[in-house]
Amino acid sequence: LRTGFPEVIWGPGKTPEQIAQIMEVMRQRNEVVMATRITPDVYSALQSKVRDVRYFGSAQICAIAPLELKPQYSGVIGILSAGTADLPVAEEAAVTAELSGFNVQRLWDVGVSGIHRLLNNRHVIEDASVLIVVAGMEGALPSVVAGLADCPVIAVPTSIGYGASFGGLAPLLTMLNSCAAGVGVVNIDNGFGAAVLAGQILRTAGKLQQR
Amino acid sequence: LRTGFPEVIWGPGKTPEQIAQIMEVMRQRNEVVMATRITPDVYSALQSKVRDVRYFGSAQICAIAPLELKPQYSGVIGILSAGTADLPVAEEAAVTAELSGFNVQRLWDVGVSGIHRLLNNRHVIEDASVLIVVAGMEGALPSVVAGLADCPVIAVPTSIGYGASFGGLAPLLTMLNSCAAGVGVVNIDNGFGAAVLAGQILRTAGKLQQR
Amino acid sequence: LRTGFPEVIWGPGKTPEQIAQIMEVMRQRNEVVMATRITPDVYSALQSKVRDVRYFGSAQICAIAPLELKPQYSGVIGILSAGTADLPVAEEAAVTAELSGFNVQRLWDVGVSGIHRLLNNRHVIEDASVLIVVAGMEGALPSVVAGLADCPVIAVPTSIGYGASFGGLAPLLTMLNSCAAGVGVVNIDNGFGAAVLAGQILRTAGKLQQR
Amino acid sequence: LRTGFPEVIWGPGKTPEQIAQIMEVMRQRNEVVMATRITPDVYSALQSKVRDVRYFGSAQICAIAPLELKPQYSGVIGILSAGTADLPVAEEAAVTAELSGFNVQRLWDVGVSGIHRLLNNRHVIEDASVLIVVAGMEGALPSVVAGLADCPVIAVPTSIGYGASFGGLAPLLTMLNSCAAGVGVVNIDNGFGAAVLAGQILRTAGKLQQR
Amino acid sequence: LRTGFPEVIWGPGKTPEQIAQIMEVMRQRNEVVMATRITPDVYSALQSKVRDVRYFGSAQICAIAPLELKPQYSGVIGILSAGTADLPVAEEAAVTAELSGFNVQRLWDVGVSGIHRLLNNRHVIEDASVLIVVAGMEGALPSVVAGLADCPVIAVPTSIGYGASFGGLAPLLTMLNSCAAGVGVVNIDNGFGAAVLAGQILRTAGKLQQR
Amino acid sequence: LRTGFPEVIWGPGKTPEQIAQIMEVMRQRNEVVMATRITPDVYSALQSKVRDVRYFGSAQICAIAPLELKPQYSGVIGILSAGTADLPVAEEAAVTAELSGFNVQRLWDVGVSGIHRLLNNRHVIEDASVLIVVAGMEGALPSVVAGLADCPVIAVPTSIGYGASFGGLAPLLTMLNSCAAGVGVVNIDNGFGAAVLAGQILRTAGKLQQR
Amino acid sequence: LRTGFPEVIWGPGKTPEQIAQIMEVMRQRNEVVMATRITPDVYSALQSKVRDVRYFGSAQICAIAPLELKPQYSGVIGILSAGTADLPVAEEAAVTAELSGFNVQRLWDVGVSGIHRLLNNRHVIEDASVLIVVAGMEGALPSVVAGLADCPVIAVPTSIGYGASFGGLAPLLTMLNSCAAGVGVVNIDNGFGAAVLAGQILRTAGKLQQR
Amino acid sequence: LRTGFPEVIWGPGKTPEQIAQIMEVMRQRNEVVMATRITPDVYSALQSKVRDVRYFGSAQICAIAPLELKPQYSGVIGILSAGTADLPVAEEAAVTAELSGFNVQRLWDVGVSGIHRLLNNRHVIEDASVLIVVAGMEGALPSVVAGLADCPVIAVPTSIGYGASFGGLAPLLTMLNSCAAGVGVVNIDNGFGAAVLAGQILRTAGKLQQR
Ligand SMILES: Nc1ncnc2c1ncn2[C@@H]1O[C@H](COP(=O)(O)O)[C@@H](O)[C@H]1O
Ligand SMILES: Nc1ncnc2c1ncn2[C@@H]1O[C@H](COP(=O)(O)O)[C@@H](O)[C@H]1O
Ligand SMILES: Nc1ncnc2c1ncn2[C@@H]1O[C@H](COP(=O)(O)O)[C@@H](O)[C@H]1O
Ligand SMILES: Nc1ncnc2c1ncn2[C@@H]1O[C@H](COP(=O)(O)O)[C@@H](O)[C@H]1O
Ligand SMILES: [Mg+2]
Ligand SMILES: [Mg+2]
Ligand SMILES: [Mg+2]
Ligand SMILES: [Mg+2]
Ligand SMILES: [Mg+2]
Ligand SMILES: [Mg+2]
Ligand SMILES: [Mg+2]
Ligand SMILES: [Mg+2]
Repeated sequence: LRTGFPEVIWGPGKTPEQIAQIMEVMRQRNEVVMATRITPDVYSALQSKVRDVRYFGSAQICAIAPLELKPQYSGVIGILSAGTADLPVAEEAAVTAELSGFNVQRLWDVGVSGIHRLLNNRHVIEDASVLIVVAGMEGALPSVVAGLADCPVIAVPTSIGYGASFGGLAPLLTMLNSCAAGVGVVNIDNGFGAAVLAGQILRTAGKLQQR
Repeated sequence: LRTGFPEVIWGPGKTPEQIAQIMEVMRQRNEVVMATRITPDVYSALQSKVRDVRYFGSAQICAIAPLELKPQYSGVIGILSAGTADLPVAEEAAVTAELSGFNVQRLWDVGVSGIHRLLNNRHVIEDASVLIVVAGMEGALPSVVAGLADCPVIAVPTSIGYGASFGGLAPLLTMLNSCAAGVGVVNIDNGFGAAVLAGQILRTAGKLQQR
Repeated sequence: LRTGFPEVIWGPGKTPEQIAQIMEVMRQRNEVVMATRITPDVYSALQSKVRDVRYFGSAQICAIAPLELKPQYSGVIGILSAGTADLPVAEEAAVTAELSGFNVQRLWDVGVSGIHRLLNNRHVIEDASVLIVVAGMEGALPSVVAGLADCPVIAVPTSIGYGASFGGLAPLLTMLNSCAAGVGVVNIDNGFGAAVLAGQILRTAGKLQQR
Repeated sequence: LRTGFPEVIWGPGKTPEQIAQIMEVMRQRNEVVMATRITPDVYSALQSKVRDVRYFGSAQICAIAPLELKPQYSGVIGILSAGTADLPVAEEAAVTAELSGFNVQRLWDVGVSGIHRLLNNRHVIEDASVLIVVAGMEGALPSVVAGLADCPVIAVPTSIGYGASFGGLAPLLTMLNSCAAGVGVVNIDNGFGAAVLAGQILRTAGKLQQR
Repeated sequence: LRTGFPEVIWGPGKTPEQIAQIMEVMRQRNEVVMATRITPDVYSALQSKVRDVRYFGSAQICAIAPLELKPQYSGVIGILSAGTADLPVAEEAAVTAELSGFNVQRLWDVGVSGIHRLLNNRHVIEDASVLIVVAGMEGALPSVVAGLADCPVIAVPTSIGYGASFGGLAPLLTMLNSCAAGVGVVNIDNGFGAAVLAGQILRTAGKLQQR
Repeated sequence: LRTGFPEVIWGPGKTPEQIAQIMEVMRQRNEVVMATRITPDVYSALQSKVRDVRYFGSAQICAIAPLELKPQYSGVIGILSAGTADLPVAEEAAVTAELSGFNVQRLWDVGVSGIHRLLNNRHVIEDASVLIVVAGMEGALPSVVAGLADCPVIAVPTSIGYGASFGGLAPLLTMLNSCAAGVGVVNIDNGFGAAVLAGQILRTAGKLQQR
Repeated sequence: LRTGFPEVIWGPGKTPEQIAQIMEVMRQRNEVVMATRITPDVYSALQSKVRDVRYFGSAQICAIAPLELKPQYSGVIGILSAGTADLPVAEEAAVTAELSGFNVQRLWDVGVSGIHRLLNNRHVIEDASVLIVVAGMEGALPSVVAGLADCPVIAVPTSIGYGASFGGLAPLLTMLNSCAAGVGVVNIDNGFGAAVLAGQILRTAGKLQQR
Repeated sequence: LRTGFPEVIWGPGKTPEQIAQIMEVMRQRNEVVMATRITPDVYSALQSKVRDVRYFGSAQICAIAPLELKPQYSGVIGILSAGTADLPVAEEAAVTAELSGFNVQRLWDVGVSGIHRLLNNRHVIEDASVLIVVAGMEGALPSVVAGLADCPVIAVPTSIGYGASFGGLAPLLTMLNSCAAGVGVVNIDNGFGAAVLAGQILRTAGKLQQR
């Protein structure tokens, strides 16, 4: 039986050999083992070293995991992203959540400068038990979404932008100052951490039910 | 005939005596003379020193001006503000624009966390020739508005907020990084400067017409 | 039947008259109305203006609310604070949560430089469905707590500190960089926002149960 | 009939294949399609993939556009730049404006340390309906120009500089603090956004005329 | 014979008693003793404690000094300031220089947004042996002046401004990034230090002559 | 007899030839000569140029030193690190201390999110005469350790982290704001400096004994 | 027998009543009880509430302590300060150290711009077992002292300065970047923390001797 | 007759072809033409393109200049640098000054942590008419030098350092906050600008003499 979160390896600064070795050790005790921030090159090198390793390219995640990922918890994690360039972070959140046993509903490219696309897809906001909202540049999306939603919102600033974005500082500050209460913020580009927090929220719900 | 912008005095750091004296000098050559950032106390002191001085309390502006301010230019400056606390800055913009001879349409309290109030008042956006959008905290409103508008948008960050707002730095960065093109940003709390820029835009339009 | 969050007024920059007036309007439609960042002086002035107004001094919150605050939702919000000086922020979170219908368990003065006091009170961490962790100065407490907890953790940096604390920037960065995944951060001193987020998490749990 | 702004692709982080594909889709519905921040290498790769693609080298812009770009709107966008190194940003603004159907008048290398070159070319300032002023290093040019001009001024800070320029922060702050009212600022290196804002200003003029 | 710089007391944080006592000690060995950042209140208190103390109000300087301040060195220190509000800093520089035995030529209110007032007074720039240029807000004046001058330029940023001025950071960065070579920068509001540096430059000239 | 600290070369920005040459000069007068921040490539190049040069790979240190490094001073420097990625900095401290004649006890991977691993190894804290605590990301470890220790604690922030870590600024501020008194902080990644300070502390102890 | 450090109360934000009450509780178990950052007003109020309370005015410390403070540990803590205005911080360190049982040698006003006063008092540096060096403004003193000393140096930046000092950020960065190894830095104005760290260093020496 | 400063090209971002072409144009009208920030590679490419081009390797300067550089002005520019790594900036200043016709006296490696080396070479300070002081890391040298010197001091912060140096921000702030009056600061790494300012100072002296 798979429970709890998978073991996770932080890829940057590790050689394929090191990643392979850690994965092999971890797979002894875990049904799911994953590594984040894995470029296609590193994945190529891993393929011959780790049996059955899979690659989620847009999320830059490598994993050892069952082919069928059946959700283990009730509830849905809605994941929204503002721009195309935010996709790797949003997918890091989505794939982490799926590998951890959660239902995910994706809604990409609903940045605030085209508010109608967001409003036309409100069902994603309404159907979710918890929302992860990913945005770079000015990072305004979580405020708008939190105003529409009636569930916890996790905001993920990304380093997408230039100039006065200062590597993601701009959307980070935006999200921390959200005029909509009920928003929790994670580190810049930290799709992984957002997924873990969202997962904890759904697990809490599950535990409360069991009482 | 009244043309151009009024003479303006920057109030902070000046005594009522100094302000009164400058106003008296300026009124020789100008139909409209105004002073910004004037607290009620300073206005009280000015009343006995400057004949016919008027006070626009919510804008913290004192002025010598005709009682009837008939617009001198065609077009409308739409002014939107996000929160109640942003009102003094928004009114500084509105009163400056009116004293300078422009039509103003106000729309207060349309922050992004309640997006429907903004959408229900879209006519203000659609009727304007130029928009001034005032917001503190996360400063997300100009991005949303610029997405809905088909005219120039002037964004004014305010120092309203606390903590990671860092005195208005957060909404300033938000506005500079707006994913919607066509947004010009002015200094934190600079409602006056926004009105002058908006006025210049309408005057330009007028001059092009005359050719 | 009391549902959802109370109406809330942000006190700073408002006169007692303005606060009283807004409270009177809001009480028409809401069982609970609250105002935050209310100093004892302002409360004194409010007493004669707002019938039955109550004061939660350590939280700097004024409220119109039933004398008996019976929890409306299952689950417990555990609230921890690091230092004595962080108490107003922690109490802002606690009283907001209680006024919103949630069970609260408080654990004060468990800063990381005396780790055994925290460990001796681990039951608070274990019994909670969601945790709010409040800390100023270096802001290290949420990381330690998130390592011990198996539920969502909301981190609240405070402006308590001096010098290189830079008004709460230091604990804010600490919390955003937490090496323990599953931590969501809110603005500096934002006890209120943390309570709303925690409340949303417990309400989500409730809604999932009902399905 | 060509109206409105062209469709625009932000080049960085996209492969030539991706850019080519998006361009092909967009050209179905748009007479002008453009991509910014395109290096010569990327252009070389695009040549074989996108029929009739043109390259504006100094602006780093690729476009599908009519060979003859006849202005569609009245009025002139004057574009000034301070130093030779600011040229790519200034050209990004100029080419965007031209591809969008506007008249452009260029004035390069009029930095404030040689004020007479600027003064000797005042006719460019006087003939313009709107001005875009591009400067890096200390970014002082827009203040001087706004003092000479009687039309809206759009200031574009660039990342040109070193040391205490901090990637364009220095000229950005300079421009936001301009003592000359009537200046709107865009993001660092954002020549494109400046052109869209200038274009909106001229289109506003056009619309007012039609009434 | 008076040589070298006067003894100087930094006023802030000292009581009138402390300042009076230090002045009395210093006057034993110095013909000129001065104290900076002295408010009118502090001066009032000093009057009864320090015989013959004089007050230079606009410079906020108190001094024991000969009534006739005859220049001791050849050459002229030209001092320019951009805005009215920069005057206290500019006067701090001017009075310090005069008390130290140098010729001073003042030119106030020549901010860059009205470039012609500066150009119409070019003789001040041309007649000076060294220039001190004082400016707040965007701090652009030293760059323009250095382009016109053929002598050393000392730039003094002031804390005059608001919002994105960040207490003088904006003009400080502007001046450090000046595109005109030959500019030395001192601390924000440091009129005193600028005068000492200018004085050192003229004394150097004097010493070279003597060889 | 070996006394005092070894001569040290700062590797970055120097060619292998330059390093070799400096090492050869220094070895005339010193029993131990070391160079820091030496990559494997540079070491390879040094091998043929410097006789008997040794490489401490995980510390990125090259040294000329006796094969047996017998401690010259009493007392133990305990060195703790939070994460695997902090190891190079921790080893820089450890190897520097050993090459300087001190006893070192290492304890790696005791980050605060797994507090029990730290508590299970408390003997390292209790046995040390001085502690060096190395941590990146949120940098919380020194606060916890200083609360448990009864000896001086030297905190070393590392640049390990991403996003809001801002190159090590986050753990640096954390450590400077430590609520546990008795913590001295060194520069980001400065394992070498921490070792020298720890060594000075033990040498001081030795000198006091001799009196 | 008095051992270890005194109990310490952080004064700011506490009423005299609260401080008095905590002092009374603490004196039950401690021979020495102290409170820092106590203004003369607060001391006046404490006098009638706390028997035998003493005031160290220049250090802003109140204490219950034996009249004769005999040193309990061998070795001397040398304390140097750069400017007169740094004195309160330097005295906070000195009095804390003395109340904690250590020998202190003071050397005030030895800022680096008058290097000979420092060199003429080198015996203080040479006689110390550990040094605390306090400096504001540019904070250069610790680097010079560390070059002269052969013992651990604790650097204390102060908030003394203005403009580009940014509340003590300038000397803090200076000290962290010291080119002299062997310097540990504490928070801005943290004389207390420096004394505790220095005390720990001398106690370590004592413990090593006992083995 | 050679007078005034040479024409200067800023090398970065220019191809050897561009540099060569500009040099050829400039040599028509100037006896000395120079280009800064020229790497050895670029120089190699320039050799075949520009007749008689010379390379000052340690200064990274290429120049067309007479082989014998006879000083054209009286007085000496003393140039001091703190660390070996600061040498390129110090040499940029020295070579610029020499190519501009000034006498230069160099003093390298006199950082403040070894104050005696500086004091042993005081004659350089005493013989100079103006001093350029170059330092990275903590940037303390100019304060010490200004205390010893009786002539103008130009401080040049360098980007040498790591961690909390923040690319030269640390020494820049140090120098701006210098407690020694009479110090002018230029941009980070701006050896060129320092030389121009120093040259202006000596030229001013010369002009005063001629009167
Ligand atoms: N993409 C990610 N973002 C943030 N944290 C991560 C990410 N991937 C892994 N981690 C964390 O890094 C830890 C592993 O680090 P390491 O031991 O260096 O591989 C995991 O336990 C996670 O908490
Ligand atoms: N509220 C305001 N915000 C920004 N600038 C202003 C404001 N009020 C006045 N000013 C500017 O300040 C100038 C007058 O400054 P002063 O001469 O100090 O009174 C005017 O010409 C305006 O450009
Ligand atoms: N001047 C000071 N600087 C830094 N920390 C201090 C100072 N005075 C007291 N403290 C710390 O504050 C703690 C007491 O805080 P509190 O419980 O709020 O009185 C003490 O244990 C000290 O660690
Ligand atoms: N090393 C340098 N540091 C600062 N400014 C420089 C430097 N070298 C050249 N310059 C300036 O750059 C200008 C030439 O820039 P450019 O026209 O881009 O070659 C010269 O007039 C100098 O003012
Ligand atoms: Mg909501
Ligand atoms: Mg639009
Ligand atoms: Mg946990
Ligand atoms: Mg104008
Ligand atoms: Mg010049
Ligand atoms: Mg301890
Ligand atoms: Mg030493
Ligand atoms: Mg001197």
